[in-house]
Amino acid sequence: MTGFAASNSPVAGRLSELRQNYEAFKARGLKLNLTRGKPSAAQLELSEELLRLPGAGKYMAEGATDCRNYGGLQGLAEVRRLFAGMVGAPAEQVVVANNSSLALMHDCVAYALLKGTCDSAAPWSRQGEVAFLCPVPGYDRHFKICEDYGIRMIPVAMREDGPDMEEVEASIKGLWCMPKYSNPTGTTYSEAVIGRLAAMKTAAADFRLFWDNAYAVHHLTGERVEIANMLELCARHGQANRAFVFASTSKITLAGAGLALFAGSKENVKWLLARMTPRTIGPDKLNQLRHVLFLKNEAGILELMDQHRALIAPKFQKVLEVFEAKLSRVPGVSWTRPKGGYFISLEVPKGCARRVVALAMEAGIELTPAGATHPYGKDPEDRTIRIAPTFPELAEVGQAAEGVAFCVLLSAAEKAA
Amino acid sequence: MTGFAASNSPVAGRLSELRQNYEAFKARGLKLNLTRGKPSAAQLELSEELLRLPGAGKYMAEGATDCRNYGGLQGLAEVRRLFAGMVGAPAEQVVVANNSSLALMHDCVAYALLKGTCDSAAPWSRQGEVAFLCPVPGYDRHFKICEDYGIRMIPVAMREDGPDMEEVEASIKGLWCMPKYSNPTGTTYSEAVIGRLAAMKTAAADFRLFWDNAYAVHHLTGERVEIANMLELCARHGQANRAFVFASTSKITLAGAGLALFAGSKENVKWLLARMTPRTIGPDKLNQLRHVLFLKNEAGILELMDQHRALIAPKFQKVLEVFEAKLSRVPGVSWTRPKGGYFISLEVPKGCARRVVALAMEAGIELTPAGATHPYGKDPEDRTIRIAPTFPELAEVGQAAEGVAFCVLLSAAEKAA
Repeated sequence: MTGFAASNSPVAGRLSELRQNYEAFKARGLKLNLTRGKPSAAQLELSEELLRLPGAGKYMAEGATDCRNYGGLQGLAEVRRLFAGMVGAPAEQVVVANNSSLALMHDCVAYALLKGTCDSAAPWSRQGEVAFLCPVPGYDRHFKICEDYGIRMIPVAMREDGPDMEEVEASIKGLWCMPKYSNPTGTTYSEAVIGRLAAMKTAAADFRLFWDNAYAVHHLTGERVEIANMLELCARHGQANRAFVFASTSKITLAGAGLALFAGSKENVKWLLARMTPRTIGPDKLNQLRHVLFLKNEAGILELMDQHRALIAPKFQKVLEVFEAKLSRVPGVSWTRPKGGYFISLEVPKGCARRVVALAMEAGIELTPAGATHPYGKDPEDRTIRIAPTFPELAEVGQAAEGVAFCVLLSAAEKAA
Repeated sequence: MTGFAASNSPVAGRLSELRQNYEAFKARGLKLNLTRGKPSAAQLELSEELLRLPGAGKYMAEGATDCRNYGGLQGLAEVRRLFAGMVGAPAEQVVVANNSSLALMHDCVAYALLKGTCDSAAPWSRQGEVAFLCPVPGYDRHFKICEDYGIRMIPVAMREDGPDMEEVEASIKGLWCMPKYSNPTGTTYSEAVIGRLAAMKTAAADFRLFWDNAYAVHHLTGERVEIANMLELCARHGQANRAFVFASTSKITLAGAGLALFAGSKENVKWLLARMTPRTIGPDKLNQLRHVLFLKNEAGILELMDQHRALIAPKFQKVLEVFEAKLSRVPGVSWTRPKGGYFISLEVPKGCARRVVALAMEAGIELTPAGATHPYGKDPEDRTIRIAPTFPELAEVGQAAEGVAFCVLLSAAEKAA
């Protein structure tokens, strides 16, 4: 009943056997979901203490800041210090906002469109066509921001060590990057790639790297992979304002009630704060205080991330084991073995991804729509499927991976037939 | 030593006496601040319970919503119900966001500029000049959003019953309104004015009332002033999409850690949620749950507001008493006696406001900059000063009001001399 054994039988018989396997799985009437990179309830329990913090009488922060009242646009000094190492910038160059780093990224795009960056001669929206480079497979929510505002997306291939960059023309204003444990491939950019991104020539002076370091401390193995400091490299190459660095605690503490982080050059931080000034008097400082009291310091963050790893690494392992057992010798099928992050990227034979997702849905397994990993939701080869194993229970992850394997085998055989 | 007595003496002697009074006050070396509408520490104590909520094990909301995890763009069902009455819309037409209603207003403007409203043929930014009507005196942060995005501001006079509106031409896309206990005049719009705003002809189909009902339940007297329901009136006049309604709990619970509220027609809510979709996966639902557990229901809100009133009404009373004693018969000087909200608007003789603020600063009293109540920070008559008495202790409020009165008397006498 392994994929490879089946693939050696004559096509018709093989197809019928694979269909039987699939139908048998479907008949189990399961309800499984591998769609989104959500922490499980057990992971959220790790931050249980946040539900009681800051606690009665606890509301003062450094500098006699009453966290209950207005103010403090840049975020508490102690929370900026807490995350300075994680985002690779001094605390003065960190901005801590409310619960969504996606919102920070969106706002940077919106501000640039409406007002321009600190290096723009005019707002992006008045500079003719605006385009972003989009490493593929990539993160659908990055692409959605561009699509929504009519920013043309130019796919660039994601290689094992990062995006495959050649040149950056005048209309190109941005590049979406997830430099560590990238969504969905798990790619970590090499020092060479990061150096090239910092040093490369760009025709537009107001080009920006949207450096979404969402998985900075989200390790899945004993190896805590480190990457080069993009802000330092940009400065060294005379491009201090090139990178907007983003991160969040959504997958460190609570997905819906964490903190969003921005880091950048002094000028970029000044720009962002000036842009934020008409929008808000300040972020929710009590939630920042909660995080300081709970996480305490960098060691506290890493310790918590070890506990996350203990909960989710077995789920990744389970998926990889099932894929290995069932799909390892199926032509055109491969998958990533990430050392961190929240996703496995599964490549199926050309033209099969949508069929696999549809088959899975029919069998009770919800997968991220095929194409979501590409700009405009269009995967030109219809090959990439994003697998998100963190949210379901371990037993369900195993069942779901098995079900996905049946779908892949059936779809590949249908295609070959 | 009252203003009036002084004003009857010969000009030179009077001026010298007033200068002596002022110098004597200055010599006390006080440090007082009447700048911003901030709740005092005692007011924030009223919501002490929020510091411990939701509490261990409390994170589930209606519909099996885990408030710790991602999702729920519109806000929890129970929190939308809680505030439905306050914003005058069914819960389905309420959106609850993070801690800043200013941010919601800003974003509605930014979305309209970049994408247009649900009634726009094109984004506002591609329709030529965009202008907003701005009742004056008004709220500086409303004006700042317009100024920042190059939206032309057209002042309209604030009368006792609301803004003095004549016609609304094609380039006019918006009108800032604070319909109850308005900042800074304390004006409450009459039913007639609200009806006219709902019914009036506007040349632009995508005109919007930015209806900032920031002080909906912020009463200063035993009379809980009510206003007509703008959303219902707009619908009745065939202009269902005209009003964007905003409110917040910043001055109900915690100024920096409250909830922002939006209400509108079904189409406007659908539009806003569609606009928010690329920006965020959802608001901080734990803070919404906290508010539900703490406030419980509308009666809970009103009860809390009674406690606020007990703390701040005496401060307003003190300012009014001092002004009455010292300024009541000074020509060209008048002030509002608000029944709610956070401000008293002080009118000084033409050309004196900046001088009064400067004199006050020199004497240790920080006031909101003169002009802040007008678009572009320019009060053409240099007459309006906003007094914000909530934040300092009662004793300090009295001292500050006395100091302001000395400054007004001196400045008026200088002008007359």
